Amino acid sequence: MAPAPRRAALVGTGLIGGSIGLALRDRGWHVTGRDLDPERSATALARGALDAVGEDPAVEITFVATPVGATADEVTRALAQGSGLVTDVGSVKEPVTRAVRDPRFIGGHPMAGSEQVGVEGATADLFAGSVWVLTPDDATDDQAYLAVRSIVTSFGAEVVAVPAAQHDALVAVVSHVPHLTAATLMRLADTRSEEHQALLRLAAGGFRDMTRIAAGDPGIWPDICAENSDAITSVLDVLIADLARVRDLVAGHDRAGLVDLLSTAQHARRSLPTGAAAADQLSEVRIPIPDRPGELAQILHLASEGGINVFDMEIAHSGEGDRGVAILVVAADRAAAFRDALVSRDYRPTLRAVE
Amino acid sequence: MAPAPRRAALVGTGLIGGSIGLALRDRGWHVTGRDLDPERSATALARGALDAVGEDPAVEITFVATPVGATADEVTRALAQGSGLVTDVGSVKEPVTRAVRDPRFIGGHPMAGSEQVGVEGATADLFAGSVWVLTPDDATDDQAYLAVRSIVTSFGAEVVAVPAAQHDALVAVVSHVPHLTAATLMRLADTRSEEHQALLRLAAGGFRDMTRIAAGDPGIWPDICAENSDAITSVLDVLIADLARVRDLVAGHDRAGLVDLLSTAQHARRSLPTGAAAADQLSEVRIPIPDRPGELAQILHLASEGGINVFDMEIAHSGEGDRGVAILVVAADRAAAFRDALVSRDYRPTLRAVE
Repeated sequence: MAPAPRRAALVGTGLIGGSIGLALRDRGWHVTGRDLDPERSATALARGALDAVGEDPAVEITFVATPVGATADEVTRALAQGSGLVTDVGSVKEPVTRAVRDPRFIGGHPMAGSEQVGVEGATADLFAGSVWVLTPDDATDDQAYLAVRSIVTSFGAEVVAVPAAQHDALVAVVSHVPHLTAATLMRLADTRSEEHQALLRLAAGGFRDMTRIAAGDPGIWPDICAENSDAITSVLDVLIADLARVRDLVAGHDRAGLVDLLSTAQHARRSLPTGAAAADQLSEVRIPIPDRPGELAQILHLASEGGINVFDMEIAHSGEGDRGVAILVVAADRAAAFRDALVSRDYRPTLRAVE
Repeated sequence: MAPAPRRAALVGTGLIGGSIGLALRDRGWHVTGRDLDPERSATALARGALDAVGEDPAVEITFVATPVGATADEVTRALAQGSGLVTDVGSVKEPVTRAVRDPRFIGGHPMAGSEQVGVEGATADLFAGSVWVLTPDDATDDQAYLAVRSIVTSFGAEVVAVPAAQHDALVAVVSHVPHLTAATLMRLADTRSEEHQALLRLAAGGFRDMTRIAAGDPGIWPDICAENSDAITSVLDVLIADLARVRDLVAGHDRAGLVDLLSTAQHARRSLPTGAAAADQLSEVRIPIPDRPGELAQILHLASEGGINVFDMEIAHSGEGDRGVAILVVAADRAAAFRDALVSRDYRPTLRAVE
């Protein structure tokens, strides 16, 4: 007899929820899902992203994939309904993490998207090769973190673990403000095009690339902007000040200043990391730790303070009761700095190359 | 005996110049070229973009494809050296047009680009399906305009004719300011990534799309910014003011204002015209005109004042001496407005559908 399938639940069956459902079912899971809009869950069922519409209290894990504004309530509800783990996929992590604080909840954010809207755009391989952020905090149970990590890794995603507040500051820079800026530029061009019909026909590939994200669903953004408004306004303030300086470079015909700006940007753009890091660029840091909740989160926090990206993380138990070994994989050129930071906090790490 | 090939010259053999050379030679032309950097012209020769390195006073047309700052001098030199037509490919058109003012010069700007730099990235089909702007003015000979138009059309480009000053205002919106904004965003993210190594790994497709143009050659931009500084600074002022308003929407949790911005942008982005217009969306406007220089430019100016995009333009001569018929192809839904504008200036246009 085949073993009973592992069971998961989805709350919200749009593009991301639907893709999670397809990815889980591809891997043999039984998936039950619901959506505020019954038509959307019916479509998800018809598209094979669900085995059943409804609720399933016996699940191992619930993915909450609602708009950001509804996430905290749905996470709390899922935690109350069963004993399984709960994770979410929202673009803003600090508010939900602060509101929930439960050992069984781990905030998440798959950095995969699409101009597609709704379950019609969902695919089982949406997450393959993309980064999936997890944001454990000091309330998180380490084993719960590792279980969620193992499931999203099975989708082909690369997990990056960072504290929630840092995640929110980072996505304001690389996602939220760029999106608002693309929309603002697109609207500006559109306004001008009322005077000059020729305008938008002159928009070559660069402009098309730059404004592509503005074609996405507007509906999700008011929630995101509300939940992450402090980080977004602070990055917009910096961008506005930077653009004012660029304006002065242009007005002043400051060639050196312009070349400096554009060369820095060119170098940074060409250095933008893609995909997973190569094994020879990674090191393993092994850290004996007391086997108790929050220990991993503390180490992650230390890593992020030092600007150290954690590519992989697991816990090996020593078999001697209440101690274990945390094994973190970090960039090889940052491993020594990380070890020093750990030593300064009385950890006793050892370092070795990843094979 | 085969007829002697038509002869063209290139000044500047980088990405655009090299691609023009390849496109011309594909169509049987003999192409002579030179570059400030002899190594670059040697490479263009080796890559088949040139028949010969040097100068050829017997050419029918010279393409000046130097950086924008050198364009006016090279155009003037080419006009003095021979009796052929001269056109250029610079991203800014008003300064060169004002400086040259010669019946044999027609400003041009192919709206095709590439992250490639130099003749190594040149291809014969770089311009296929792209828009090539021409900016005849009241000094331009109509036949010269039509000859240049016919040559660039043979490369597969779609010609759009607009006055030089209008071109410069438009590209500030759809090219120059977006480029500077992408560079500014990329540098901002790069600055933050010094604190947070994780940052740039979180940059998903949207950010990559948006900053792709920042990977291009910085070298051409100081010239462009200097030559088009008035238009660029004025668009940057508008963008900065718009972003400040967006910042206030975010800070004030103004959902309706954000949805309005994002919906307008989404609609505009999805409506961005691509490729050539379908024939059933076009109308032909035939206008009897005196056969003298500047007449076409005047009609073009009238079209652009009315926000009417000119897709095609030719002149049929009546055989009765000093009169001809200008035939312009415009968007069908704007044709009646164009006719009315012409009538108000004492032209006697007739309208018909394009077959």
